[in-house]
Amino acid sequence: MAAVAGEPEVIRDKAAMRAWARRRRAEGKTVALVPTMGFLHDGHLSLVSAAAAAASATSPVAVVVSIYVNPSQFAPTEDLATYPSDLAGDLRKLAATGAVAAVFCPPDLYVRAGAGGSGGAVSCLEEAGCGDGHETWIRVERLEKGLCGSRRPVFFRGVATVVAKLFNIVEPDIAVFGKKDYQQWRVICRMVRDLDFAIDIIGSEIVREADGLAMSSRNVHLSHEEREKIVEQESLVALERIDRPAAICVAAWFGKVRLIDNMEIQTHHPDGGAGI
Amino acid sequence: MAAVAGEPEVIRDKAAMRAWARRRRAEGKTVALVPTMGFLHDGHLSLVSAAAAAASATSPVAVVVSIYVNPSQFAPTEDLATYPSDLAGDLRKLAATGAVAAVFCPPDLYVRAGAGGSGGAVSCLEEAGCGDGHETWIRVERLEKGLCGSRRPVFFRGVATVVAKLFNIVEPDIAVFGKKDYQQWRVICRMVRDLDFAIDIIGSEIVREADGLAMSSRNVHLSHEEREKIVEQESLVALERIDRPAAICVAAWFGKVRLIDNMEIQTHHPDGGAGI
Repeated sequence: MAAVAGEPEVIRDKAAMRAWARRRRAEGKTVALVPTMGFLHDGHLSLVSAAAAAASATSPVAVVVSIYVNPSQFAPTEDLATYPSDLAGDLRKLAATGAVAAVFCPPDLYVRAGAGGSGGAVSCLEEAGCGDGHETWIRVERLEKGLCGSRRPVFFRGVATVVAKLFNIVEPDIAVFGKKDYQQWRVICRMVRDLDFAIDIIGSEIVREADGLAMSSRNVHLSHEEREKIVEQESLVALERIDRPAAICVAAWFGKVRLIDNMEIQTHHPDGGAGI
Repeated sequence: MAAVAGEPEVIRDKAAMRAWARRRRAEGKTVALVPTMGFLHDGHLSLVSAAAAAASATSPVAVVVSIYVNPSQFAPTEDLATYPSDLAGDLRKLAATGAVAAVFCPPDLYVRAGAGGSGGAVSCLEEAGCGDGHETWIRVERLEKGLCGSRRPVFFRGVATVVAKLFNIVEPDIAVFGKKDYQQWRVICRMVRDLDFAIDIIGSEIVREADGLAMSSRNVHLSHEEREKIVEQESLVALERIDRPAAICVAAWFGKVRLIDNMEIQTHHPDGGAGI
């Protein structure tokens, strides 16, 4: 059970979040952000551990976990409406770590158009006509096109944009992303480099279930039978040759559940000629 | 003549610039950024004055002027190669104001692709193939399409992106933009709102030459005859009806010199029916 000192502060307002983080930095703390879409599992908690581990003797870490299901990364055909959520459970799990100083769970992060604008839960935020709603998008043009990008054209645009917003609200020194979302992690690293964000990005390793399945908030939608199939298919990736550090990435739909996984491969071939 | 205390510090390195600005903020100063492309005239110096005027009794202002001819906002057919520059003259003018604490003049702000990448002065930074160069772009999708945007498709993408980079490097509390570049000012305001930058944007009024011509670094390219024509044509804008605050924006090519100007109009028509 978490001590009272371990209870995170729950913050819903952008300005309050920024003021809170600035106070922590003024106290000499390193602010570490863990962005999530909630429905937390041990994979997320491993990101919290990675953030907490960034503490040094001279600078303690204040870990901020954001919980926000970002509508702009869901296409209209995708599963925004059924994306699982359990804020009360999330807060209990985060409190139990004793490592989280604040949880940022804003009701909405986007400015919606005044007239003819749409309500809260709208995929990808496309709005017809010339409103005054959100219209600024960050694109990482080459990286967003590969892998998942070809099937999910708005996904990385939405991810990069909401992460930039979170960076500007929380102003963290460090941000932690899971390597399970491998392409997302690479897109964020490239965005941080290209736009000169003063933030160190930590890529955290994949956490797996006992049966080997990569942890995901969407696993809850899997039947027992579907789950066994996935696990079997994880190795079904054809490779011709790998002569430099590479990553195998897979994404699969099972019924209406979309899952992803990946594995990094380090090779050392002096002549670059050997495959695996 | 400026006192020695008025000599701005000249900074060329991103990390040094950020560290300098953070020190100023730690001292309780408000950091105000004036982004320019150099070849400064009285219009720019009015932006410096606007930045300096943001000082309050409790928080003195540290004004940073950036000088950087941003290649990504020039299309390959545009005038990057002939854009005028005079860094020594600029530094003298800024020192003479006594109001500038630092001048940020980086040699380059973009990561160029390692192999097959291009040199320093390349318009709009488009690179073929799959390099490791800059690939992150910010688009303000509706605002960038109007007015100048239709003729200059990469312009506002380049402006928004370089301004975001400068914001992340300098981390200013305030940034000042001239309303002469009216659409640019609006694009920046929208970007700041949509991406949650913690920066107040000040729009500074147009400064004109004695003959009424809006000041521009490009005016130096005009002949005496061309100059007289421009001035005459400034009023040649047809309007049907204006029933809310509006701005008249004009852009004109004179020979090889592209110039812009604009005028804001405030109207108060109770029935919205009157025109001008």
